[in-house]
Amino acid sequence: MPAPGLLTSPVLSPYVIATSKVIKCKAAIAWEAGKPFSIEEVEVAPPKNHEIRVKIAATGVCHTDAHAVNPCFKAGLFPVILGHEGAGIVESTGPGVTKFKPGDKVIPLYMPQCGNCKFCLSPKTNLCEKISKIKTPISDQDLMPDGTSRFTCKGKQIYHFMGTSTFSEYTVVAETSLAKIDAASPLDKVCLIGCGFSTGYGAAINTAKVKPGSICVVFGLGGVGLSAVMGCKAAGASRILGIDINTNKFALAKELGATDCLNPRDFKKPIQEVIIEMTNGGVDFAIECIGNIDVMKAATECTSVGWGSCTLVGVPAVSSAGAKLSFLLYKFSLFNLVYYGLAAGWKSVECVPKLVTDYMAKKFNLDALVTYTLPFDKLNEAFDLMHEGKR
Amino acid sequence: MPAPGLLTSPVLSPYVIATSKVIKCKAAIAWEAGKPFSIEEVEVAPPKNHEIRVKIAATGVCHTDAHAVNPCFKAGLFPVILGHEGAGIVESTGPGVTKFKPGDKVIPLYMPQCGNCKFCLSPKTNLCEKISKIKTPISDQDLMPDGTSRFTCKGKQIYHFMGTSTFSEYTVVAETSLAKIDAASPLDKVCLIGCGFSTGYGAAINTAKVKPGSICVVFGLGGVGLSAVMGCKAAGASRILGIDINTNKFALAKELGATDCLNPRDFKKPIQEVIIEMTNGGVDFAIECIGNIDVMKAATECTSVGWGSCTLVGVPAVSSAGAKLSFLLYKFSLFNLVYYGLAAGWKSVECVPKLVTDYMAKKFNLDALVTYTLPFDKLNEAFDLMHEGKR
Repeated sequence: MPAPGLLTSPVLSPYVIATSKVIKCKAAIAWEAGKPFSIEEVEVAPPKNHEIRVKIAATGVCHTDAHAVNPCFKAGLFPVILGHEGAGIVESTGPGVTKFKPGDKVIPLYMPQCGNCKFCLSPKTNLCEKISKIKTPISDQDLMPDGTSRFTCKGKQIYHFMGTSTFSEYTVVAETSLAKIDAASPLDKVCLIGCGFSTGYGAAINTAKVKPGSICVVFGLGGVGLSAVMGCKAAGASRILGIDINTNKFALAKELGATDCLNPRDFKKPIQEVIIEMTNGGVDFAIECIGNIDVMKAATECTSVGWGSCTLVGVPAVSSAGAKLSFLLYKFSLFNLVYYGLAAGWKSVECVPKLVTDYMAKKFNLDALVTYTLPFDKLNEAFDLMHEGKR
Repeated sequence: MPAPGLLTSPVLSPYVIATSKVIKCKAAIAWEAGKPFSIEEVEVAPPKNHEIRVKIAATGVCHTDAHAVNPCFKAGLFPVILGHEGAGIVESTGPGVTKFKPGDKVIPLYMPQCGNCKFCLSPKTNLCEKISKIKTPISDQDLMPDGTSRFTCKGKQIYHFMGTSTFSEYTVVAETSLAKIDAASPLDKVCLIGCGFSTGYGAAINTAKVKPGSICVVFGLGGVGLSAVMGCKAAGASRILGIDINTNKFALAKELGATDCLNPRDFKKPIQEVIIEMTNGGVDFAIECIGNIDVMKAATECTSVGWGSCTLVGVPAVSSAGAKLSFLLYKFSLFNLVYYGLAAGWKSVECVPKLVTDYMAKKFNLDALVTYTLPFDKLNEAFDLMHEGKR
């Protein structure tokens, strides 16, 4: 899950002619858990069958990347090149690639869309079979589809991450994990459509299915939460409460659609009780964008008796494999529905280009989500800023 | 939540002329938690404004009644007359009652439908505001709407239960908690529509919204589970797995629509893994009709990646106020939706008569759910049989 608002933007070099040679470039290597990223020279092998090599123009940083190197989580695979919220330009294509050519603007997709599996063929989910093995020790996304890596550094194989690895000047992705986008789009903005924006916006529109005239509350006003606010507004919500302990976020939240902003620390009673009173019985839609178990409970409890729905977007920071959410069953059972949407329901290959088009048509505001733009080699500082929640 | 299949059926006396006098009759009093019911002579006061006095012809027994006198649960109100799955005939009506007259066949409704509250006016829920205060120490259903009881025994006031108190030869109910049904209907069968049948059948049709051609699994093949099997079949499921550790239930389950029946004790691996293998990736709809936390987990876990839905019907026997269901969030979040439907989505006053009509048109089979019919003063034996799961 993402928290954009922060972009590292290497200077985009001029158009690169397709090559099938190894490229040497800079990448951020996570050698082990709990350590800063190390900016190193890596070798990026040419794309193999149905693969594309992409020159990354910009990438966001996200709490999911931070989780992957957090020693509190179950052990990830190291060394690895993280990053999954990027945008770039096709540098070269491997054999069999027909939908992309050098020079195309593209967004790498951490949620693939193979188009052929029973999930891709169903309108009921955006989950692709290629990501369904996410629970196995090594997922399909940690290496390329043939089971090998395209990255080496100092003679060592480096793992891919989520099939995207955008913390590198060049990356290689599978054809099913890439979306071609509008040639006029600004890559340092639309990269946010790769994760953070789509997650929050889609949580409101696709997962919660917010209805016109409804009352909504969004917990957490980072990049995802602000995108959820925009989604609620786009869906026609009549009232959108924004909740955060960082009041610096309130002005922008209101600009983007929040009608009221509340800081839980301003109240003596639990925030869910405050919300229930303010809304005469609870909200129609609650969306949690933090990943805090207590806030998740508050989110389920502040929904209306009878039809309230709660959408959980945040991922708890304790352990992605072991975090448990306990519901007080009697209350839950009477009053709440709980949904969750991974990648928030977007069929990636087909939806990401449409979201870029919508952005270009000014249907929503990505620019407001970009709080800092830093050069690539300041990646560790970008993470520090994200953790501080600076605005 | 109900487990019908068991009926106490006092002999129906001839048509009783409306009277506004106190009636003396037999009722089953629960004087305190953890003790057998005591069949006593009680006084049943005449109905007040917008109330109806009903001669009960038959009543089912249900685990919800058992929960109410189980000392493991939080303290209920004593002394009390339980029972919420009955059918009878209007004996007399209080002032202001226009929709009922003496002689009408009726089913008392534990889920009221006042028709005027914001919930009744919404198509999104069957929950009526009159039951929304269920969490307060004394709910609207423990006494009549004016805050008094119509029952006394040995000079003591006796509490009502769920607004129905069908464990009495005569009971008094609010006009908003009563449905008038087909005059030709057999009361010793249609009483099951008051709770058990409607809960299971509605869980499949209204709550889970089972789709034609889908693969379903029902955990627990008591009265509710068998009704859920019938609901899945009526909704057009192509495959219906029935799960129970009591194999005596399998023959009837298959007669009512189950395509396969499994006993978890016949397998070395967890039943959810068996189901996932049998169904090539998991079921479309899982319905839990037991109230066992471990089974609830199995039910969530046996659903298909991407679109599997799990409906929880059972109420855990540990504590209705405190039972917690923990989800392994990472798995839950990726793969499952969990719903719950109190009274399974039926708007009671308008839907119960229609269900009776459907039964009379042989659209489903209630008769198969009746396993024993006992005289009223054998009520304690009826509970023993229910706990034994005898068939």
